[in-house]
Amino acid sequence: MIVMRTNATEEEIAGAISYVENRGLRAHLSRGAERTVIGIVGDIRRVQKEAIETLPGVDHVVRISRPYKLASREFQPDNTEFNINGVRVGSNQILIIAGPCSVESREQLLETAHAVREAGGHALRGGAFKPRTSPYAFQGMGEAGLEILAEARQITGLPIVTEVMAPEQVPLVAKHADVLQIGARNMQNYNLLHAVGQTERAVLLKRGMSATAEELLMASEYVLSNGNRRVILCERGIRTFETATRNTTDINAVPVLKSQTHLPVFLDPSHSTGKTEYVTAIARAAVAAGADGLIVEIHPHPEDAVSDGAQSMRPEQFADMVRQVKAIAEAIGRTVPEHKREIA
Amino acid sequence: MIVMRTNATEEEIAGAISYVENRGLRAHLSRGAERTVIGIVGDIRRVQKEAIETLPGVDHVVRISRPYKLASREFQPDNTEFNINGVRVGSNQILIIAGPCSVESREQLLETAHAVREAGGHALRGGAFKPRTSPYAFQGMGEAGLEILAEARQITGLPIVTEVMAPEQVPLVAKHADVLQIGARNMQNYNLLHAVGQTERAVLLKRGMSATAEELLMASEYVLSNGNRRVILCERGIRTFETATRNTTDINAVPVLKSQTHLPVFLDPSHSTGKTEYVTAIARAAVAAGADGLIVEIHPHPEDAVSDGAQSMRPEQFADMVRQVKAIAEAIGRTVPEHKREIA
Amino acid sequence: MIVMRTNATEEEIAGAISYVENRGLRAHLSRGAERTVIGIVGDIRRVQKEAIETLPGVDHVVRISRPYKLASREFQPDNTEFNINGVRVGSNQILIIAGPCSVESREQLLETAHAVREAGGHALRGGAFKPRTSPYAFQGMGEAGLEILAEARQITGLPIVTEVMAPEQVPLVAKHADVLQIGARNMQNYNLLHAVGQTERAVLLKRGMSATAEELLMASEYVLSNGNRRVILCERGIRTFETATRNTTDINAVPVLKSQTHLPVFLDPSHSTGKTEYVTAIARAAVAAGADGLIVEIHPHPEDAVSDGAQSMRPEQFADMVRQVKAIAEAIGRTVPEHKREIA
Amino acid sequence: MIVMRTNATEEEIAGAISYVENRGLRAHLSRGAERTVIGIVGDIRRVQKEAIETLPGVDHVVRISRPYKLASREFQPDNTEFNINGVRVGSNQILIIAGPCSVESREQLLETAHAVREAGGHALRGGAFKPRTSPYAFQGMGEAGLEILAEARQITGLPIVTEVMAPEQVPLVAKHADVLQIGARNMQNYNLLHAVGQTERAVLLKRGMSATAEELLMASEYVLSNGNRRVILCERGIRTFETATRNTTDINAVPVLKSQTHLPVFLDPSHSTGKTEYVTAIARAAVAAGADGLIVEIHPHPEDAVSDGAQSMRPEQFADMVRQVKAIAEAIGRTVPEHKREIA
Repeated sequence: MIVMRTNATEEEIAGAISYVENRGLRAHLSRGAERTVIGIVGDIRRVQKEAIETLPGVDHVVRISRPYKLASREFQPDNTEFNINGVRVGSNQILIIAGPCSVESREQLLETAHAVREAGGHALRGGAFKPRTSPYAFQGMGEAGLEILAEARQITGLPIVTEVMAPEQVPLVAKHADVLQIGARNMQNYNLLHAVGQTERAVLLKRGMSATAEELLMASEYVLSNGNRRVILCERGIRTFETATRNTTDINAVPVLKSQTHLPVFLDPSHSTGKTEYVTAIARAAVAAGADGLIVEIHPHPEDAVSDGAQSMRPEQFADMVRQVKAIAEAIGRTVPEHKREIA
Repeated sequence: MIVMRTNATEEEIAGAISYVENRGLRAHLSRGAERTVIGIVGDIRRVQKEAIETLPGVDHVVRISRPYKLASREFQPDNTEFNINGVRVGSNQILIIAGPCSVESREQLLETAHAVREAGGHALRGGAFKPRTSPYAFQGMGEAGLEILAEARQITGLPIVTEVMAPEQVPLVAKHADVLQIGARNMQNYNLLHAVGQTERAVLLKRGMSATAEELLMASEYVLSNGNRRVILCERGIRTFETATRNTTDINAVPVLKSQTHLPVFLDPSHSTGKTEYVTAIARAAVAAGADGLIVEIHPHPEDAVSDGAQSMRPEQFADMVRQVKAIAEAIGRTVPEHKREIA
Repeated sequence: MIVMRTNATEEEIAGAISYVENRGLRAHLSRGAERTVIGIVGDIRRVQKEAIETLPGVDHVVRISRPYKLASREFQPDNTEFNINGVRVGSNQILIIAGPCSVESREQLLETAHAVREAGGHALRGGAFKPRTSPYAFQGMGEAGLEILAEARQITGLPIVTEVMAPEQVPLVAKHADVLQIGARNMQNYNLLHAVGQTERAVLLKRGMSATAEELLMASEYVLSNGNRRVILCERGIRTFETATRNTTDINAVPVLKSQTHLPVFLDPSHSTGKTEYVTAIARAAVAAGADGLIVEIHPHPEDAVSDGAQSMRPEQFADMVRQVKAIAEAIGRTVPEHKREIA
Repeated sequence: MIVMRTNATEEEIAGAISYVENRGLRAHLSRGAERTVIGIVGDIRRVQKEAIETLPGVDHVVRISRPYKLASREFQPDNTEFNINGVRVGSNQILIIAGPCSVESREQLLETAHAVREAGGHALRGGAFKPRTSPYAFQGMGEAGLEILAEARQITGLPIVTEVMAPEQVPLVAKHADVLQIGARNMQNYNLLHAVGQTERAVLLKRGMSATAEELLMASEYVLSNGNRRVILCERGIRTFETATRNTTDINAVPVLKSQTHLPVFLDPSHSTGKTEYVTAIARAAVAAGADGLIVEIHPHPEDAVSDGAQSMRPEQFADMVRQVKAIAEAIGRTVPEHKREIA
């Protein structure tokens, strides 16, 4: 939809029409009292919005169709559902993933894994490769961390969710993990999205801290269009002017995404608040708003955590959160499932 | 707390200390490996943070004590509770205020008021004076609108919440309304805050669209310090880069405010989303996060509304929202009260 | 321009067309491959964008014409120029307004006024009524401050720019001042905009800290449509996530506003940075970007300022800034005028 | 600097002190009227800010020392200067890099390269690997594009600036390019920063669209700490609520970065505005604010550009921009150098 300037000449209008028609599209002219508008009919991927805006007499171009396809509810009306190592995602059941920010040691991780399982969590998170703002901060245990995660799955039966940071790490991480997490800073790392799109592992895609909901959907389209349909979207807080919390939880994104896409939508109340004392309230809010799952940070001894201590719950706080989330889930006709497996 | 530059000289350190001591305060020197820090002990309102930052050798000043007092939980640990025409605010009960954006006619308002009452709403909102972005848009019915609101209270028993836009309107609006609403655009209209602080009417203070939670508390301090302790804070969405919704609901603000202040905290899911289809989900989330009440826009015929049609629920949608919010309230051990009054 | 949903039925399309035509407007149908679009032709103020969005089958509505008129370059192609007590605004000459944040005493103001004049400033700013975040902070000298400002004009010949905060203050402030300043927090205080629109004083309208350029133009439309055509727009920094500076100077707003409106555009580098050390660089940038004037904070003794000390220049810093700004002005073919008046 | 809660007990204060001392650091106690503060003296990398915030009685922790070192002016007071294929960066001379968003063909690139050279540009930019929001958009010519860029250097003598998107592309891109560009979306792609930090090519590091100036410096620290000291920082606009321009140019970042780091600071007025009509004004502003260089998008036929057409200047617009920027540079005592090389 090309909006012409109010003072556009007939010649400029004709020029814009020719531009469209020369590219194999049809132009549809509409003259208003103030402005003339030209609709473009056909496959608009043949023209560039920005290029049209450079034509003389053109004020701006309004895009009317959505830029993503595979992720849209129009393409697939029913919710995407799938299993992760026996756990169902995207159904009426609400899933809770928990664990430490970083894998720090075998002891720390196993202690946490047992706590997750006992409290009613369904999957274990933990970072082996860590994106850190400072090059001098702990960067994760790497492969050794992945092996500890795999051992924790062996012992507790909990599927493993862990971050992958670069295309060349994908085969290694995919070998050990059940879900490949793409961190907020990498939401538009397209080479990485391509790489995980070609694996058979589910992908948990975190929203970038200044990405719109639409851009998150476009990022998921990179994974989907590479053949991997098992994508979980995750709201984790956006960056705003507010400094009372680490990020601002965009709770609106939950119903917005649920209405626009069939993919499951999770929320991370630990990163979206940055403070333990607010995590339970936001976890309740997320489920009330329609989220399909949660991913939270817990640590047996937050004061000793090498990263994210301020937003990590203690196991007993987490157990209490699970109880509260269950009550909310039931109030809206959903459930938080019990475990069906035994400890190996 | 004055943080000196790493290369500050002894003379500059001595200068900063003198500056503090000359103003009747005590300075407390602390030398770190990299930097020297000077604590200021005493009534810091005698010095200006900004002024100190102009002194030679000073890098910046960090404020440690909170800038508000009467609004803080440290000043008053227990929740503020009060009655509005028979309705209890700030207690374990959750309050629902509803009504049209603008009072458009007697018929429209009375029809809406009955719908609010039947659906289980506890107070009626409606604008007689409207802040509009455009000088050419409908600016409200003014005093005639206030009289219609008062009649609706007479008939339905619902207390009235309505906006006041200027100090000189305060006596008139206070004559008709039970709660004086301060709109987001006026959150830092200090003359208006003074004026409502001197009335005996409760005040519903909306957060400015780019105000921090702390600034909202500072604005409430203007009302409180004028002697009016009946203040309701209201989150109504903040302005961010996201365009999928009209504003971004800052759901974090609910637990943040509840931890920092004793004042009741409400949320307006109509303005914070801007789209009817998301209002119920965000109303549920607000209550799940700990909000003490909701204020929502409803209209018997949204397609004919003179303002805010896209975010106004139909009465039957509102009734459904009330039912869902009740379920959430009960899940967290709170209630949405039934009406105790009869129609006059 | 009504954009229908992809799955809109023929009945829904017909319904939307009837809606438009029933309000005396013409509907213009355009069927695309994916979506149907209905153009609205006529005076669109008869319909509400939001109301149409509630109709069944409607996805969203795109506004194509601008919502402001008197402020637009389409309405008046030539720049607005006017005199303020002998000083020309909006011409090829660049104007510099300077002075303290607050009038603190006769001595402080007169000392500053002389410094402004000597350094080559063209008008004197100073606050008598101060909007302060805290009710406990200094709120300005009020009428006594206005009288000191008037005396400073008498002595130095500099026109006076000072803030007005409430409609009832307008007559008093207009009696003493040459330019009525509307502060950022009051940009959408519509009662105040109405009141200053009915005076004969020029108005310096500061952009709200989260207002778009379009909203600033809409606010100016309130003043213009009340008959006052002497409006200066002023960029003063917007609120973003960046904390290195007090606000983020939206330098883009300078060419954006200059292309969309005929009104003069100023920039306030003191508030837009919040730190003296950056003021000169941003003053140069503003003029390089096309600003018609600057308003800066200076104080003879910033370390003693009761407000805004950290962003107030000393007189000698200001004099240096004026020299640098002159060089930039000349590089782009503009001038910073010398004084033509003598001290009384 | 640990700030205790106002109601912290003696036991909690003692606990926080022990925590610090047990980690080999010294604690420095300071009791205020309202609050107690504990300074931490020693290598604070041994403790986690977040972990301390979980201790009982602790309100929050304030960091006083900067988190980056090699990038800071305190570490290196003098500006970093270096040559890129005969062109000096970081000196008193201002550098202009120009070229198309994408390399589209040999003809397009060579035509543009000649235009850059003739207009007085100093280096040629052009993308061979393109980060695109949509997986369906043109993703760049890849290696063939790099070869065309190398040929353009051969012919015009202009050094080549081109983006690298993934660690595994680094050797290939480094083989052909003089400057490796890290795009805004990859500013915190730490694996990529490591990889370019180990090459001998200069790096142009673009600020992420929601990154603070400090985070940009932290990202540069990743490159510097890997041994590569030839880093150029580039402001390219940040994401805000304003929609009149594609991004908001953070002009403040120029003096902020210049005061905090010795690295050269460039600005990209094409991305920071998104509209050709504003590029020249912002280019002038950037140089007036103290930028050391510019990177701009030009295209011989913007209406045919496969990407970023709306913000690409035509060659004659670019030549005019260079002339205007020269005048600004001279006004502040800097120069835009002429070419010293002949066409091969």
